Amino acid sequence: MQWKIMPDIVKKQTISALKADNTVHEAATMMAKVNVAAIVIEDAKGLLTGIVTERDLTRRVVAKGLDPKKTPIADIMSTNPDTLAPDDSASDALELMQSRHFRHLPVVEDGKCVGMVSIRDLYMAVKSSLEENIRETEAFVFGDRYDA
Amino acid sequence: MQWKIMPDIVKKQTISALKADNTVHEAATMMAKVNVAAIVIEDAKGLLTGIVTERDLTRRVVAKGLDPKKTPIADIMSTNPDTLAPDDSASDALELMQSRHFRHLPVVEDGKCVGMVSIRDLYMAVKSSLEENIRETEAFVFGDRYDA
Repeated sequence: MQWKIMPDIVKKQTISALKADNTVHEAATMMAKVNVAAIVIEDAKGLLTGIVTERDLTRRVVAKGLDPKKTPIADIMSTNPDTLAPDDSASDALELMQSRHFRHLPVVEDGKCVGMVSIRDLYMAVKSSLEENIRETEAFVFGDRYDA
Repeated sequence: MQWKIMPDIVKKQTISALKADNTVHEAATMMAKVNVAAIVIEDAKGLLTGIVTERDLTRRVVAKGLDPKKTPIADIMSTNPDTLAPDDSASDALELMQSRHFRHLPVVEDGKCVGMVSIRDLYMAVKSSLEENIRETEAFVFGDRYDA
């Protein structure tokens, strides 16, 4: 599969982001509001500095007994996260996410987050591509192309 | 793909479970300890009554400002969750999870949880199956089987 992260898997989009001095409670509220499992953290210039996921809230906040309204995101975010570039290949991205057990990766251009890819997006694309490959091969083998 | 949920996707296993009167903090601690994103809730007889996921902890606890150490799981769990049977087909399970946006489903036998399937397990299995299908078709088309 020769698909690129953009535009084949996700389109460029405005990504919901917070600052590192926002609270963990604000992060959870934003995740619920915009229906996502991960949000990115930006600095004052809008450059990506971190990522926070539902897993981080579970393990680094609830399990640790921290108070979400008194804990800044800076205390629990993953800094300098791995990222994808818009023209990375979808299959390379899937392998990276499988091997490192990531479920989400920010897509970054000039230091700014321009999209978010989930492993689910990638699996669905790979599955569609493989199914298409099978259909085309079968059409070739059984001659449907020439019977039409 | 004719694979069954068990044993093709997951094996029968002891699933970490809590009771509905355990706290949300205990649920998060167990998730972190056993490295899972969802745990099942059982009654005194060991029968499945609910499920709690990282998403529930994010949206129903942290975003709502509840105190994890004072909130019983009963208050935030999903009761009577959808489940799979061990001999359900993997492709039917994947369609169910895609259409309803589930990431985890308990596998239940005689009312007891005997396994947990993630959509990631299913995608990986479907991807492998499709790739194998393509390899076999190519081997047939190009005659590799008979050249050996």
